[in-house]
Amino acid sequence: MASSSEGSGDALLPDFPRGPLQAYRARASFSWKELALFLEGEDMLRLKKTIFSALEDDPLFARPGGGDLPMEKYRELNFLRCRRVFEHDLLRVEDMLQSPLKVWALVNCLGMYDWSLAAKFFLNVLVFGSAIYNSGSERHFKYIPKIFSMEIFGCFALTELSHGTNTKAIRTTAHYDPTTEEFIIHSPDFEAAKFWVGNMGKTATHAVVFAQLHTPGGGCHGLHAFVVQIRDPKTLLPMPGVMVGDIGKKLGQNGLDNGFAMFHQVRIPRQDLLNRAGDVTPEGTYVTPFKDDRQRFRMSLASLSSSRVSIVGMSVVNLKLAVSIAIRFSATRRQFGPTDKEEIPVLEYQMQQWRLLPYLAAAYALDHFSKSLFLDMVELQQGRLGKDASAGQAELGREIHALASASKPLASWTAQRGIQECREACGGHGYLAMNRLGHLRDDNDPNCTYEGDNNVLLQQTSNYLLSLLARRAQGGAHCKSRLKTVDFLEAYPDILGQRFEVPSLEDCLDSSGGAHCKSRLKKPTPTSLARGSRWPSLRWSGCCIPVCVPVSVSGGRVQGHPPF
Amino acid sequence: MASSSEGSGDALLPDFPRGPLQAYRARASFSWKELALFLEGEDMLRLKKTIFSALEDDPLFARPGGGDLPMEKYRELNFLRCRRVFEHDLLRVEDMLQSPLKVWALVNCLGMYDWSLAAKFFLNVLVFGSAIYNSGSERHFKYIPKIFSMEIFGCFALTELSHGTNTKAIRTTAHYDPTTEEFIIHSPDFEAAKFWVGNMGKTATHAVVFAQLHTPGGGCHGLHAFVVQIRDPKTLLPMPGVMVGDIGKKLGQNGLDNGFAMFHQVRIPRQDLLNRAGDVTPEGTYVTPFKDDRQRFRMSLASLSSSRVSIVGMSVVNLKLAVSIAIRFSATRRQFGPTDKEEIPVLEYQMQQWRLLPYLAAAYALDHFSKSLFLDMVELQQGRLGKDASAGQAELGREIHALASASKPLASWTAQRGIQECREACGGHGYLAMNRLGHLRDDNDPNCTYEGDNNVLLQQTSNYLLSLLARRAQGGAHCKSRLKTVDFLEAYPDILGQRFEVPSLEDCLDSSGGAHCKSRLKKPTPTSLARGSRWPSLRWSGCCIPVCVPVSVSGGRVQGHPPF
Repeated sequence: MASSSEGSGDALLPDFPRGPLQAYRARASFSWKELALFLEGEDMLRLKKTIFSALEDDPLFARPGGGDLPMEKYRELNFLRCRRVFEHDLLRVEDMLQSPLKVWALVNCLGMYDWSLAAKFFLNVLVFGSAIYNSGSERHFKYIPKIFSMEIFGCFALTELSHGTNTKAIRTTAHYDPTTEEFIIHSPDFEAAKFWVGNMGKTATHAVVFAQLHTPGGGCHGLHAFVVQIRDPKTLLPMPGVMVGDIGKKLGQNGLDNGFAMFHQVRIPRQDLLNRAGDVTPEGTYVTPFKDDRQRFRMSLASLSSSRVSIVGMSVVNLKLAVSIAIRFSATRRQFGPTDKEEIPVLEYQMQQWRLLPYLAAAYALDHFSKSLFLDMVELQQGRLGKDASAGQAELGREIHALASASKPLASWTAQRGIQECREACGGHGYLAMNRLGHLRDDNDPNCTYEGDNNVLLQQTSNYLLSLLARRAQGGAHCKSRLKTVDFLEAYPDILGQRFEVPSLEDCLDSSGGAHCKSRLKKPTPTSLARGSRWPSLRWSGCCIPVCVPVSVSGGRVQGHPPF
Repeated sequence: MASSSEGSGDALLPDFPRGPLQAYRARASFSWKELALFLEGEDMLRLKKTIFSALEDDPLFARPGGGDLPMEKYRELNFLRCRRVFEHDLLRVEDMLQSPLKVWALVNCLGMYDWSLAAKFFLNVLVFGSAIYNSGSERHFKYIPKIFSMEIFGCFALTELSHGTNTKAIRTTAHYDPTTEEFIIHSPDFEAAKFWVGNMGKTATHAVVFAQLHTPGGGCHGLHAFVVQIRDPKTLLPMPGVMVGDIGKKLGQNGLDNGFAMFHQVRIPRQDLLNRAGDVTPEGTYVTPFKDDRQRFRMSLASLSSSRVSIVGMSVVNLKLAVSIAIRFSATRRQFGPTDKEEIPVLEYQMQQWRLLPYLAAAYALDHFSKSLFLDMVELQQGRLGKDASAGQAELGREIHALASASKPLASWTAQRGIQECREACGGHGYLAMNRLGHLRDDNDPNCTYEGDNNVLLQQTSNYLLSLLARRAQGGAHCKSRLKTVDFLEAYPDILGQRFEVPSLEDCLDSSGGAHCKSRLKKPTPTSLARGSRWPSLRWSGCCIPVCVPVSVSGGRVQGHPPF
């Protein structure tokens, strides 16, 4: 690998220009090019280079000088940039379908440039597009090519002004009228207005709208998704009966036009119900392949899990950017020293290392984990599309839901705290807007909230784990799952019995934490990490905590090229 | 008290308008008007009402509609508002001198409106003005009335592009030229440019500039402060030899024009050396009342301690605002409930209470503490101005330096984390700019950095405490200080011997933490808090930690009106 990567690496990974970081870079104990190839693979590096080069070479993506644009101008420019991303055709649809990880890479590259752009693209193609693809059926696939040809521009309208977390309480209604074979979409009052919908503020022409489905005489069948045209694609004027607008300035991501919409008896064809979870016959009879309501409800919100997994990736990007900025600054900023003349880089101070390096480590760990979780998610979705109705598929769905619900908080909070620490660790200069740490903090912040408030999501994972424990206590069933992320529960009496005991001061200062945990658990060794046992406990602050950090292993040895 | 406060309270503290918070307010177990009178006193409430009414009634202080102003416009408007604050004459100079706590209240009221405005006013009147008043002598007092008549506008120029924390390494020079009786202020290169100086970007006409003082044949005498005119007061054009400008957009406080300046052999009269720490005779001989360099260095930076104390107050204001916004929102926002129809306010959820109420408690504790520390600071400064050179005064100076160095981090971090928690606890709506939590976070952020990075400052307090412990270990001297904030060190073997032991589950759930700490320390009771023992241990998460939270007591009972 080494020789071939060196050959191709030079074109793909040119040397850094000489500069004040040269001295530190020269002291690295490893080749950064080999590491980059190991972590990403040549194919992925090539794609990223293509994307970044396209943005660098196109004047539309130049940062405006002289401070920030006014919000309205920024939103307009962001839309133009989003169009241009389509025009550049950075990733063809076939490639997207063949390699979902490349879609992930495209979104994250756009996010590295500006999350407003990434979100605008992502919400249109992936959230709006996937909702149609995953929740609809063949009669809806006509919308997909129109997304890519920019004939329509989409958004995903679930949240309402008064209901976000309590999704079941969404109050927009869709009454079926068999005389015209139409649904009548209606917002009873302003509190039931769709709100916070990304792309809806200025530019979306179509929305996937969640509403309570009613049939004549059949009552309410719960929440379902509908494709609703909200604007004329030529004029961007609202469609009759639709009141739609921008919700105004946010703390960050201000290139993205979050909006609201109220529907006044808006009629849409029966066929625009996304009918995977349930359908209505022309006569007005409700039919569903799902036996119980909860199962159907879960199905209709299945796309949220994939959004959460994406947020893990977005958070990792923000953490990477912030840590790079702060560590590079720390390597060049000098303060105090052995003499009045000679000062030393602040990175040499233990305090600065203690503040920044754990976040650097977290960036690597979470980067690896997020990709692995994404691939598991893809597997789950492929099963769904293949109509896999096995118990194993359902079990995998629950496990990934629990994983996504815990890892979105873990990643978004780690990024939020990490960015804040980076800001502070750069001192005053970290507070200058041009150094980007503020934008990163502001853009990362909603990762803690959308697609489920972090605190609420953690309870979902807790519920999942406690239910497994209860099942084990009742029937003695073993805690085992497809991805093996819950297998540690088997050892939970041992884990709870662990005590932090430090025999000596030296042991306390041993950052590897080797001797601290007294328990009957065997200490994991590299060779015990056989294929499949992907979730070792991560030692943190000297105490064993089982943390979901996958390592890619095969036959006991970490491989050169992971399969992504 | 109750009857008189009710009589005057109604005019001063009118009832809240009826609204969705009515129900919660009606359930209060205490009278909020009595509490406000108790905490603030009638005089202070009246001043605050005057200030807020002046701002409310003046169209210049109306918030511009349609989103934020462009940065340049905002800076211009902020300057006009600052002028208007002087014109309103909200607090006369005599009142300022008589009641420093009213100055504190004025700054905090302006900060509640907009920290950019408060900072602009504060940096001019209090930082620039105080530096002249405290570090200069009678020959400099001519500048003071010019500040109030807006003939000059000031700033405080210590930090340089490459040196902030390491103050001693400041590289701007002031060479004395006896032939013209002038100092020549000079910046050797751009890294020695004054940087981050608030008010310097656009509007300051004069700066207190810190530079290394050199005399012919006498070498370098270290850092001293000089009054340097940097702009023409009529045209705001730079003075000859001064290159001055704005450093650009920051993460927050963008109404404040932070700037940079380079001096190219700028000549100023000998008299413009602020000569309290040291002076130069017309012939060029350096004279100082201080015996050693460290003492003089400390003197010339003494004004930083008062800035740190002010930052404690600023942080408390931000925490108060954020907590009020979040708790009011939580009392009206409903989500989930016993039935589909009836939802309950999110404030009723244990999780929401657990997230927000500790910050409410912290706001009260820190509010009280910050005022008390401010008054101690005033006492110290009055001693300094009275040229009190006693050992007691020096000891008080060290104690207040250590207190300010620990409480700025405590308050600014508590506010920063509290605001972030409030933002998240308000869910999506907390991310809308109009709800102000973002501005508060951005405006509070530099409190963690300026006037000393929090992490570095904490080391100063640690040094102080460890030196006391070392002194005690060597000579057996008791740990006692003027403000009694270090007296807890006497008991440090007991404190270190404490263990967290919970006899039962019930004790663990007892939030008062009463039974958890096993030690030889007596549990403090209200009656043991006699006058003078102002620093009880604060029980936090069930464990005794000595925290600097003063309680105002007299004869064992909390008094109705504290003396401020």
